[in-house]
Amino acid sequence: MSKKIRLGLFGLGTVGSGLINIIEKRKAQLLESDGIELEVVKAVVRDTNKTRGCTTEDIEITSNLDDILKDDSLDLIVELIGGTDVASTIVKTALNNQKPVVSANKALIAEQGEELLKLANEAQVPFFAEASVGGGIPILKTLRESLVANEIKSLTAIINGTTNFILTKMEEEGLSYKDALQIASELGFAEADPTFDVEGIDAQQKLRILAAHILGGNYPVGEISCEGITALNAHDFAFAEKHDLSIKLLALAIRKNGEIELRVHPTLISNLHPLASVRNEFNAVFLNGDAVGEVMLSGRGAGSLPTASAVYADIVDICTRTSTSSTPKQKTYNTVSIVKKENIETEYYLCFTILDQPGVIGEIASILGKNKISVSSVSAELVENSDDLGVVDVIVHKSKESSLIEAIKEVNQLERTRGEGKFIRIERNI
Amino acid sequence: MSKKIRLGLFGLGTVGSGLINIIEKRKAQLLESDGIELEVVKAVVRDTNKTRGCTTEDIEITSNLDDILKDDSLDLIVELIGGTDVASTIVKTALNNQKPVVSANKALIAEQGEELLKLANEAQVPFFAEASVGGGIPILKTLRESLVANEIKSLTAIINGTTNFILTKMEEEGLSYKDALQIASELGFAEADPTFDVEGIDAQQKLRILAAHILGGNYPVGEISCEGITALNAHDFAFAEKHDLSIKLLALAIRKNGEIELRVHPTLISNLHPLASVRNEFNAVFLNGDAVGEVMLSGRGAGSLPTASAVYADIVDICTRTSTSSTPKQKTYNTVSIVKKENIETEYYLCFTILDQPGVIGEIASILGKNKISVSSVSAELVENSDDLGVVDVIVHKSKESSLIEAIKEVNQLERTRGEGKFIRIERNI
Repeated sequence: MSKKIRLGLFGLGTVGSGLINIIEKRKAQLLESDGIELEVVKAVVRDTNKTRGCTTEDIEITSNLDDILKDDSLDLIVELIGGTDVASTIVKTALNNQKPVVSANKALIAEQGEELLKLANEAQVPFFAEASVGGGIPILKTLRESLVANEIKSLTAIINGTTNFILTKMEEEGLSYKDALQIASELGFAEADPTFDVEGIDAQQKLRILAAHILGGNYPVGEISCEGITALNAHDFAFAEKHDLSIKLLALAIRKNGEIELRVHPTLISNLHPLASVRNEFNAVFLNGDAVGEVMLSGRGAGSLPTASAVYADIVDICTRTSTSSTPKQKTYNTVSIVKKENIETEYYLCFTILDQPGVIGEIASILGKNKISVSSVSAELVENSDDLGVVDVIVHKSKESSLIEAIKEVNQLERTRGEGKFIRIERNI
Repeated sequence: MSKKIRLGLFGLGTVGSGLINIIEKRKAQLLESDGIELEVVKAVVRDTNKTRGCTTEDIEITSNLDDILKDDSLDLIVELIGGTDVASTIVKTALNNQKPVVSANKALIAEQGEELLKLANEAQVPFFAEASVGGGIPILKTLRESLVANEIKSLTAIINGTTNFILTKMEEEGLSYKDALQIASELGFAEADPTFDVEGIDAQQKLRILAAHILGGNYPVGEISCEGITALNAHDFAFAEKHDLSIKLLALAIRKNGEIELRVHPTLISNLHPLASVRNEFNAVFLNGDAVGEVMLSGRGAGSLPTASAVYADIVDICTRTSTSSTPKQKTYNTVSIVKKENIETEYYLCFTILDQPGVIGEIASILGKNKISVSSVSAELVENSDDLGVVDVIVHKSKESSLIEAIKEVNQLERTRGEGKFIRIERNI
């Protein structure tokens, strides 16, 4: 016996039209394997006259939210409009009406995830948003279901395709940040205003969603420390290459002494680490579970069909469960407290521009020592096309961030240093 | 309201005791999140007096199969004894009694998967075996559920930890096959008799399970072409390094013109391919879906807790579905026909030992040409510690395997070649 599922769809952009195309393509198969007939009955769009990337013959296209929200005959609501205002109204109304909801809305889940999940649990309807993190990579369901045996001890992710593309170009082709960004824009991997991506904010939002999945609880985005990639330059990549390291913009969630470190920043990792081989616009989530050990999932983190693939899987997931109580619970309990930024300890690579004169390195090393920062290695070289400037690269053992910032400030004030010292974190045990 | 699930467990070896430990550890959490109380009521073992790696206080330990199979009060049967005889009886009896079954038994699923799945579908109970392939990596569920939007165009996997460990040692440390195997044995990554692993049979069985998951249908293990790693030597790895390639034992399933290529063999792949960075005992499955694009899952393919992690997830998966009809269907329809071995086309690296005299390379190239094999590059070098022997490395464009075998035979018969020519397949588009 077949079961007809009537969908109401908000948004018919790239992901929405990709979804329609997948539903068409898989219709016969889904009917045969699970006896389910998916029908997109209505779609709400901003501009009803716009041409779409899919057939819309059998779909009632409207611009009125209520055409879907007040239609009792619909079985499932799909929210693909993005943003947090209208989308929030849509999701809340649907959940309050006891309609299952599938969303791909990262910003919404990052901002209101726990509130919406609580609503869904109260209404006893599923609310899935696999596509909100990592596009087609099934990371949320894997955390929720396949790794249910595990406490996730740490999770490290490359979850922004734009920045990973830029960093790959800088690493492999020796491009400057600016040139790499230019290429990313030309290929459609970077927005006209790339701030959101290159400053790490996109990764920060996704990390917050991942954190809620591995820990339960609520983690305000603003409490996740975040640095982007705009300050990286060719010298950093040369340093990395010399030390068999790779520079990646990582989103990290690391359990430590009952607390959680949540941070997004450029990170030096070993070339042998699986994340180092994640190239171009690809995304990856690397995690360490107390039973399963190390697991990595990688794939395309964006794009019409990869994202729609995840949305479709959420829809089928809901449809194949005969009862909404058979939906695996997302954790809603206890928020773990976030380790304060100044208390985070990592190894660091530091870089200072100096006057090439005897004694400067000694002055820098003394300041580091005074701040209880232990030096692992120092090397210096002349700045190209300069008569009197040198660059000093320093690797220091695990140190407190607060001490490091203090030390760099002092070094900056030395008479024979130039400009501001910079640092990149090194992670060897993720 | 909580629901108690009574488990009957066959086998209390490394995976079984790992499972008991996980169940204990996650008890409170599962009760809180899903209202489910898992209780291992009975365990059937061969030797009831043996000490186990877990607490067994509350478990009735017996050696009589019927103590579980005829106990109507049990809700779910877990089969962890391995082998295909007794295990088959256990699984069939349980399914016939309409008990859901979880198994970790690769050999059983590879041999009787479709038959058992058919039984399960008829009895309308779930039968899951995530742990049968890739240990803790959730590949089967991902194929079944998360990638349901996709036709999988190709799947390429490193699914044998022993061989991947050996190949990593040969590549990174320049060890001989024999020395690498020795280390693998010492570290517990290789059995006393490693034949099953090093000849590719383990990978062949797992590929057959993966093929059924991506295609539906039945693929007799014997029809999957299979070559092991025992013939690989230091020269092969030197060649690979020179060409920025890596040698991996791959299990490949590639759709081609409505058929499927299924094969296991050592393969030269680009160092930039994500599979090239899968090191040591790790496993990985790399696939290409028509919607999601390229996705890779990697992790530990064996071991007590990684495997038990997968078994536990299957158990919870079954328990959280209130109705057995809410179990996503595994494909049982249409078997796709397997491309005949002799019709498979790949690029090849060929290697011949020759007398170091003018004209020999010409003779070899002529034979290749006569067999319609197009040469991409040839290089020769002297054999170390030899006065008159040389080694010729040849890369040829895509060629039919039957033509290649024929050509190598002819080259072997040349007066000025020594020993047997060998080849390794090169895959650039997986």
